Amino acid sequence: MIANLDKIQFASAVWYFTDYKKSLGNYIVDVDGNSLLDVFSQISSLPLGYNHPDLHKVIQDPDNQIAFVNRPALGIFPAEGWPEKLTNSLLSIAPKGHTQVNTFACGSCSNENAFKATFMWYRNKQRGGAPITDEENSSCLINRQPGSTPFTIMSFKGSFHGQTLGCLTTTHSRSIFKLDFPALDWPIASFPRYRYPLEEFAEENKAEDRKCLAQVEEEFERFNKSGRFVAGVVIEPVQAEGGDVHASPEFFQELQRITKKNGAALIIDEVQTGGGATGKYWCHEHFNLPDPADFVTFSKKMLTGGFYSLPEFRPQQGLKIFNTWMGDPSKVLLLEKVVEVVKRDNLLNLAQESGKRLMDGLKDLSKRYPQHIKNNVRGIGTFCAFDLSSPQKRDETFVKLQHHGVQSGPCGEQTLRLRPSLVFQPHHADIFLDILETVLNDIQTV
Amino acid sequence: MIANLDKIQFASAVWYFTDYKKSLGNYIVDVDGNSLLDVFSQISSLPLGYNHPDLHKVIQDPDNQIAFVNRPALGIFPAEGWPEKLTNSLLSIAPKGHTQVNTFACGSCSNENAFKATFMWYRNKQRGGAPITDEENSSCLINRQPGSTPFTIMSFKGSFHGQTLGCLTTTHSRSIFKLDFPALDWPIASFPRYRYPLEEFAEENKAEDRKCLAQVEEEFERFNKSGRFVAGVVIEPVQAEGGDVHASPEFFQELQRITKKNGAALIIDEVQTGGGATGKYWCHEHFNLPDPADFVTFSKKMLTGGFYSLPEFRPQQGLKIFNTWMGDPSKVLLLEKVVEVVKRDNLLNLAQESGKRLMDGLKDLSKRYPQHIKNNVRGIGTFCAFDLSSPQKRDETFVKLQHHGVQSGPCGEQTLRLRPSLVFQPHHADIFLDILETVLNDIQTV
Repeated sequence: MIANLDKIQFASAVWYFTDYKKSLGNYIVDVDGNSLLDVFSQISSLPLGYNHPDLHKVIQDPDNQIAFVNRPALGIFPAEGWPEKLTNSLLSIAPKGHTQVNTFACGSCSNENAFKATFMWYRNKQRGGAPITDEENSSCLINRQPGSTPFTIMSFKGSFHGQTLGCLTTTHSRSIFKLDFPALDWPIASFPRYRYPLEEFAEENKAEDRKCLAQVEEEFERFNKSGRFVAGVVIEPVQAEGGDVHASPEFFQELQRITKKNGAALIIDEVQTGGGATGKYWCHEHFNLPDPADFVTFSKKMLTGGFYSLPEFRPQQGLKIFNTWMGDPSKVLLLEKVVEVVKRDNLLNLAQESGKRLMDGLKDLSKRYPQHIKNNVRGIGTFCAFDLSSPQKRDETFVKLQHHGVQSGPCGEQTLRLRPSLVFQPHHADIFLDILETVLNDIQTV
Repeated sequence: MIANLDKIQFASAVWYFTDYKKSLGNYIVDVDGNSLLDVFSQISSLPLGYNHPDLHKVIQDPDNQIAFVNRPALGIFPAEGWPEKLTNSLLSIAPKGHTQVNTFACGSCSNENAFKATFMWYRNKQRGGAPITDEENSSCLINRQPGSTPFTIMSFKGSFHGQTLGCLTTTHSRSIFKLDFPALDWPIASFPRYRYPLEEFAEENKAEDRKCLAQVEEEFERFNKSGRFVAGVVIEPVQAEGGDVHASPEFFQELQRITKKNGAALIIDEVQTGGGATGKYWCHEHFNLPDPADFVTFSKKMLTGGFYSLPEFRPQQGLKIFNTWMGDPSKVLLLEKVVEVVKRDNLLNLAQESGKRLMDGLKDLSKRYPQHIKNNVRGIGTFCAFDLSSPQKRDETFVKLQHHGVQSGPCGEQTLRLRPSLVFQPHHADIFLDILETVLNDIQTV
C-alpha cells in the first residue's frame, strides 16, 4: 500500500507502509502482502537485511536487554565494559591509523561533530600553545570573534552531507534539501564529472581531475587570504545522493596532498559508502591514499552514527564533542554482532562477487538497451548505479520496478542506485537483472 | 569507579563506569558496587528510572523485537500501524493544538529541524503564493540568496539548545560549548534574571521582564529592518544548562504576543523540561499562554527526539524535514509504555508531590545553612535547583554528595540541579535532603 503522507508526520511525499514481520533477508513485504526484492535497504542502512536471526538473538539475550532499557548519557556514564564493546565493534573495523572513535545518533550529528573537532584542532594550531583568553571566552557566548571563529569547511558541488544547518552548508546535491534555509558562505569546489566509458576518455578525465583540483587550490587561497581559513575539506568517496558520481583514486590522492599542504583536515564522509557494500568496510580504502584520512564519518549500515579520527584530533577538553546520548549502546551491541556475522559469513567477499555479477549484467543491459540505459554504469562492489536516458524514464523505471517486485532507489537527476544489504547474493543479482530487463522491454516503446 | 577519559572516545572529562544490571529504580550502581540515589537520571533522560519491569516486557515481547532489528527509513517506509503508534504515544500527550509531530534521533536534530520548518513557513508567507523561481533553486545550491535565505532565529543569553552548528548559534550558556566554532550572527536578547525571594522583589522582577522584552522588540526591529528577518524565537521554559534560570508566566505570555506581532514563530524547547518532571508533560503549560506555542521540541525523557507543531507549519513538500532514520520506532514503542505507566501510576501527580517535599526541604535548608545555600531555591515539580554560595562550594558539594551516595547534576556557575526520574517518591526526597544536610555540615567549616 502506498499512502499519501499522513497528517501526523512530515517527511517523504509518500509512505510505503511495510510489514516488517514478514520481511526477510533481501525481501521487503508491504502491507498488502507484496514481496519486493529490496536493493535499496532503507536508504542503504540495513547491513544484514530483514530479521536476521543473529540480530534477533542479540535482543533476546536478557543480558543485552539491559542496554535497551537503560539508555545512558554515554559521554559520562558508560556501562562497565564499554571500551571493550567499542574495541570489538567499531575499532575492530576502523580505517588504518584510526585509533579514536566517537558515536552519535545519526549521520548529520556525526558530520557536525567532525567539523567541530576540525575547527578545534585548527584553532589550537593557530594558538600555538597560547592560553585561551578571557576575550575569547566572553565573545564566543554572543557569537563574536575571536571566540567564535571565521573558519570554514570546503565541500563539493553535488555533495550530500546531511540536513542540519552545518551539514546543509556543505550539501549541494538537490535544491529541495536547501531551499529557504540560511547557509554559511563556505568554499565550494567542483567534483569531477567524467565521460564514459572511462577507458575511452582517460585524457579528458585526467584533465577534469586537474580542473577540479585547481579549483580546490584556488578556494584554499581565496578563503585563507581573506582570513576565513579553510580548516577542513569534506568529501564523499562516491557522491551518492548526487547521483552516484565517482572520482578516480588519483583525484582523492591529490586532494589529500593539497589539503595537507594547506594545513587543513580531510574528512571523508562514509555515511552511505561505509559498512561493507563496496567489498571493503570503507570505500576510500579502494583509493590507496598515501596517508590515512584525518576523519572518517559513518552511520546507516553501521547502525550507529559516529566518526573515527587520528589521535591528533582528539580534543583537549571534554563536553565540546558531546551531547546527552552520544549515540546508543544498544546499537553498538547490534553492530558487534553484525561485524561478527560479516566475518563469519565472508560478506565482504560476497559483496565483491555479487557486485561483479550486477556490474556485468548492467553493462550488458546498457549495451543492449542503449536507448534506455546510458553507458555510464558504475559501481564498486554492490554499490552500483546506472543512468536512464532521461529523468522521466528514470521515474518510470523506478515505478515499474516496484510493480514487478523490486524496490530500488532514485538519486541525482536520472539515476537509479542499488544499495542492497550485505546478504545480497549473486542469484539476487540475477533476479534483479531479469526484472530490470522485463521493465526495459516494457518501456521500450515510450 | 571514576575513570579518566578513555582513549577511544571524546566526551566528558571523566567517565563514571556504571553497572546497569544492578541499577534499579532511583538507584544507579557503579562498577565498584556503590549504590547512589540518582537525582540526575542520565542528564534528565530516564523517565522511569533503571530497569523498569514494564520496559523490560516491551523488549521481551517477540512482536516488538521486529522493531529493534529492522530499523526503517521512517520517512519513507514506516511499519504498518505507525500512525496509530504515534497517536497512542506522542500525540496522546501533545501540547494543546499540536496535531503534527515529527520524530528525530536527538534533541539537536529536533531543534535544527524545527528551525528549518520555521524558515520554510516564513519564506512561504513572504512569497505569498508566488511560485519558486529557477533562480531560487539554483542559487540555494551554492548557498546564495535568494534561494538561501538571510533569515534568523532569536535566542536568549544563558540558553542551551544543542551542539550542532544551528543549535549552537542559539546556545549561549557556557563558553566551553561554543569556543572555536563558527556561529551565525543571529539576534540574542536577555533572559530575565530575578532577585530572590520573588515575593520581596516583585516590582524589580517585573521591571526585569520589561527590560528583556524591550530587547526582544529591539532585536526584532533591528534585524527585520536590515532584511535579516527573524523567522522564529527559541526559548526554554527553564534555562536548565544555564543554571536553572526561571522566568515568570507573564514574561512568556508577553513574549508570545511580541513574537506573533512580528510575524515570527515561537519555538519552545522542552528537551530538558518536557516529559513530566514539572508535574505536567510540558513545562510551558504552567504559563497559561494565550495561544498554543507554534513548535514544541523534545527529546531525553521522551526517549525519542522530535517536535510538535501547529498544522500551519506543515511543510508543503517532502524530503525537507527529513533524514534517513527520522528517529527510531523502537524508542516510540518504549515511549508508548512510558505514557501508559505514567497514567496508570499517576506519576505526574507524584512529581508534584515529591517536588513539593523537595522544595520545602531545600527552602528550609537554605534558611538554616544560608552560608552555603543561596536563597534562590527554585523549581516546578521535581525540576528543582539551588545555588551554592560559590562555584567552588558547588563543586565540593557535588563531589561530597557523590561520596555520600547521591548523584546530582551541576549546571550554570554555582548551581546543582535535581532531575530525578518520574518514579522519584517523597521518601527519596527525604533521603536526598538528609544526605544534603550531612554534606552541608561537612563543608560548614570551609
